[in-house]
Parts: sequence; C-alpha cells; structure tokens
Amino acid sequence: MDFAPSQTDPAHTCQHPPVFDDAFFEQLIDLFRWRRDVRRFRTDPVPQALVEELVSMATLAPSVGNSQPWRFISVESRERRQKVIEDFNLCNAEALKTYEGERAARYARLKLSGLREAPIHLAVFCDMETLAGKRLGRLTMPETLSYSVVAAIQILWLAARARGLGLGWVSILHPDVLKKTLDVPAEWQFIAYLCLGYPQEEHEDPELVRSQWQARLAEPGRLLHR
Amino acid sequence: MDFAPSQTDPAHTCQHPPVFDDAFFEQLIDLFRWRRDVRRFRTDPVPQALVEELVSMATLAPSVGNSQPWRFISVESRERRQKVIEDFNLCNAEALKTYEGERAARYARLKLSGLREAPIHLAVFCDMETLAGKRLGRLTMPETLSYSVVAAIQILWLAARARGLGLGWVSILHPDVLKKTLDVPAEWQFIAYLCLGYPQEEHEDPELVRSQWQARLAEPGRLLHR
Repeated sequence: MDFAPSQTDPAHTCQHPPVFDDAFFEQLIDLFRWRRDVRRFRTDPVPQALVEELVSMATLAPSVGNSQPWRFISVESRERRQKVIEDFNLCNAEALKTYEGERAARYARLKLSGLREAPIHLAVFCDMETLAGKRLGRLTMPETLSYSVVAAIQILWLAARARGLGLGWVSILHPDVLKKTLDVPAEWQFIAYLCLGYPQEEHEDPELVRSQWQARLAEPGRLLHR
Repeated sequence: MDFAPSQTDPAHTCQHPPVFDDAFFEQLIDLFRWRRDVRRFRTDPVPQALVEELVSMATLAPSVGNSQPWRFISVESRERRQKVIEDFNLCNAEALKTYEGERAARYARLKLSGLREAPIHLAVFCDMETLAGKRLGRLTMPETLSYSVVAAIQILWLAARARGLGLGWVSILHPDVLKKTLDVPAEWQFIAYLCLGYPQEEHEDPELVRSQWQARLAEPGRLLHR
C-alpha cells in the first residue's frame, strides 16, 4: 500500500494553485488573533459531522516523513469523562501546591478547563510505533513524531475557530491515567485533551492575560541574527 | 511586568469578533491543502520585512501558560550555513545507512532539504528556562513547552504559504551541533530548522507522496469513540 501512487495524483498535475489575496491574508491574521484557548463553553451540542470534518482537516497537517501519526478519540462515555475530570482535579490540586501566597491565590481563581461544560471531548495521541514514514527524518530528532501531532491539533484549532467553535487544550492531566481511562494501545503517546464547543464569549486577548497571570511579551517576537 | 495589563485590553473589550464566512472557510481549507513541505526553492530574495511579519504572526500561537517560549534566529552567515549543510549531509548519510536494498535506493534519490537554495534560514528554539507562564500547565506534561513552539511554527508556515512562500522543515540535523554552530544559550532546546523562499513549483500532493515514499492514509483521519 505504501508504494501505491496517491489516488489524487493525476488530477493534481494539471491543477492550478489557489491565489491567496490580501483580503484573505487579513482574515487569516484575524483568525490567528482571535483563536483563543477557551475554557468557558455553552453547552449547546456540536454537530457530529462538523467534528468529523475538523478531524479530517487536521490530517492535512505536515508530519515527519509523512508518517501521519495522529490518532483521535472522541470521549463520550459519562464514566470516562468523570474519570478525566477527577484526574484533572487531582493534578490541579497538586499544581496549586507548587505556588505560594498571592500567586497561589491567583492560581486558585483561574478557570483552567471547560471539561464539565464542553459538549465535545477529543483525546489526541501519537502512534509511536507507526510504520508509516519509514522513520524518515526521525533518526536524530525522534521528537518530531509527536511534533507532527501538535501540528495537526493546531490545524484543527484554527478550523474550529473559523467555524465559530472554541477549543481548549487541557494539559493538567496524568498521561498514564488518561491512557488507562481511555483504554488505548500502549504505544500511543498522549499528546492533548481538547475541549470543543461554542464559546460563551469572544475576546482577542488570551485568557491568561485577562486574568493577569501572564502578559504578552514583545521579546520573543524579535528576530535574532547569526 | 508580568502583572501589567495587556496594552491592548481597553481597545478590545468593546471590539466585535470578526465573522468567518463560508467563502473564507473554503479558502482556509485550500490553504491547508496547498501548504507543502518545500525543498525546491527559487533563489529570489525574500523581503526582510516579510520575514519579520511572519515571525511576528507566529507569536500569535497558543502556548502553555502563555509562556511564549519560542525563539527565532535568522541564520545569515555563509560560514554558519555551510556548517549546517555539512551536518545535514552527515546526518543524511547516517540515515541512508539504516535502509537496505530498494528502500535505500529510494532514500538516496529523495531531495530532503533546500538548504543550498533557500534564501532564508530560520532556526527555531524553545527556551526551557523561561519564567513566563510560571510553569502553569506543565507539571504533569513538561513537553507542552516545546509543543508551544511547534504551534508557532505551524502558524508561521500557514502565513508564509498565504504570502506565496514555501517552507521546508529540516530535522535531519544533530541538535547539539546546530546549537554549537549558532552559539545559542544552553537552555534553548532546538526545535526546527526552517528553509523559506519562493517555491519552484506548486502542488497539492505532498513531496513524499509524489516520490512514492509514503502515501496518504485514510485510517488516521477516522475518529474513534470511547
């Protein structure tokens, strides 16, 4: 199968690439600016076909050696969601203990997930033993396999925002607990737990800026020269 | 500084979010479809202001705890570029040795970087010791710091493609050699070496599909349920 020519090859050789004009570019900047990590969701349902479309778009992401190592699970069982929430609460309590004084008080006030409200929960994994890609590009940087999954999540995030959906990435979880809760193959590395739904509010400034946890910085956007 | 309100807060509270309509969504899908990992560049120069705009857009990416750990270096010195190319050649020869027979012959025929032709070289790092974000979201998943840099690269990649530029991610390098060549702080983790320039050709099918190294797969786009 690996050596089969792409089904789409013949059609594409005579295709012309799309033109992305200034108007599109401006809208694209708007999309980047208004893509937020959302933790405040309306409970309105999200059509299953839309979720499937978004996951399908995510597979247009780049991957090292074209390995396509992303694996998506929609978490729907009430029991499994409850276990995820319990693990989040445990991890969040552990995290709180690492702060002191005013910083701890600030942390305690943050809303760090929309796990209870979000209608869609997606768990995203990286298949560390996929044969696709034949290890190309990974000999000196094996971490590029998981990076490929992060790229796919980013595409999904932007597509979701363009469809009016908010996405929140929850990383305050124990990967081993999550894998056990969702009963996934041992060789799947847990990358992200995503909450998806219609946001309660729209804003351009990040949640952690609004809550005065961490301001935007100018420095990291400065290009260094060597 | 961390607790200073965002400069943009007052302006945004009364702003209305942009509307992303179906026409934009169709163009966005086109952008995802036609974003390629480019290794065949024209040598035409790329305006420095455009490179800086793209890097600035990359900083609109999400980051764990709003840590903004991305660091971008434009590699311009002929000597440094030559050292990067030499390391690529070494790594690529090592990688070739891991294949046998027909697969090795195929690998040898692949063009895996545009390092010699691309007018712009960007090295991207993750500052592992940044204080920004105050470790939020990283206690159980420290890898999310480097994932944030991957997200920024993905934004830069899409923005570049929308401006008619091609980007190629080179991972066939020794991170330690690269860090020494570019003389970066010890705490910066090497994430990616990006070639940037106008592409010689436009196509929708990935380079590794065209060269029959790895076909697109249907399986990873299928949403599993739990």
